[in-house]
Amino acid sequence: VSDRSQGPRPRVRDQILATTQELIAEGGYAAFTIDALVSASGISKTTVYRWWDNRAHVALDTMHAAYGWPAEPAGDDPISRIRSYLSAEVEYQNGPAGPILRGVFADSQLRPALAETLSRLYLAPRQEAMESLLRAGITGGVLREDLDVPVAALMLSAPLLQTLLGSAAPAPADIADRSVDVLLAGIARPRV
Amino acid sequence: VSDRSQGPRPRVRDQILATTQELIAEGGYAAFTIDALVSASGISKTTVYRWWDNRAHVALDTMHAAYGWPAEPAGDDPISRIRSYLSAEVEYQNGPAGPILRGVFADSQLRPALAETLSRLYLAPRQEAMESLLRAGITGGVLREDLDVPVAALMLSAPLLQTLLGSAAPAPADIADRSVDVLLAGIARPRV
Repeated sequence: VSDRSQGPRPRVRDQILATTQELIAEGGYAAFTIDALVSASGISKTTVYRWWDNRAHVALDTMHAAYGWPAEPAGDDPISRIRSYLSAEVEYQNGPAGPILRGVFADSQLRPALAETLSRLYLAPRQEAMESLLRAGITGGVLREDLDVPVAALMLSAPLLQTLLGSAAPAPADIADRSVDVLLAGIARPRV
Repeated sequence: VSDRSQGPRPRVRDQILATTQELIAEGGYAAFTIDALVSASGISKTTVYRWWDNRAHVALDTMHAAYGWPAEPAGDDPISRIRSYLSAEVEYQNGPAGPILRGVFADSQLRPALAETLSRLYLAPRQEAMESLLRAGITGGVLREDLDVPVAALMLSAPLLQTLLGSAAPAPADIADRSVDVLLAGIARPRV
């Protein structure tokens, strides 16, 4: 791995990301290969692999550049911020980022090197963001102090991912709020 | 679609499932195509497509025939049965069924017709099984009567799927119990 601390020149980066977006828009993720990218962008394969690890890396960079990350969670209290974050994530996955994510997930099932890229650029940052929102809720006194934060974070985000990858239909708009409601109340029958 | 109520003759079915298992064991899910199956089994493509919709259908039938479904949940009370069911599911996904599931999920991201097969033969039956365990908990008086059963079921099973599809490492053995613990207690700070 070469020293990537400086990143590619802006012209190279812009060209790569714009071409990737075009290729995916025209032919779907399946049509997006490094060979197609080299051919359509006029940038050499050596240069592509100097700055990007694989096609999942290019695709996720393109997705973030084109569609952003989910908006900063809005709201004055920790629970509203968790709801806001999850709702934004549902909208994000239901938008043009969804098919790119599905393509990268498909790719990474059959090529283990890509799973590391997917985890580093997509799953891990989102898990960290959710854990941080939950910890703010503990500090703010609204969530239990003994909360298993990593598992609770996973339980909030995983249903969205299962819906994205396992359903033909888009996620229902209320899935975020319903998940938060179930988790806030717990499933055990309240003692009377 | 022809009338499939009788199913293929046992000899045909056995030959198809055994050949599929061999192809996947030798070359992974990527090596398993209907063309390879026809060539290795000596059974015609017409016969394969008479009884199976696509390669995901053949692969999931093979997986169920070879590795079974997760064991019947054990335990005398509804919560033990939920824990037992989820733990069995973790073991199942961490075993030889895991790579087949990953392959079918990969396939179905890029070919929408396969997503219906995956949902019908894998996701929907498991969602129903989990919902039925939760409803038994409501009837048994240990889970809250106003529980959002579909969302709670999804929150219990989706973390396992996210781990299967998004992580290079197998699911931690305690993920099932930790999920049940978080959901039982709820995340809200108890009122004192």
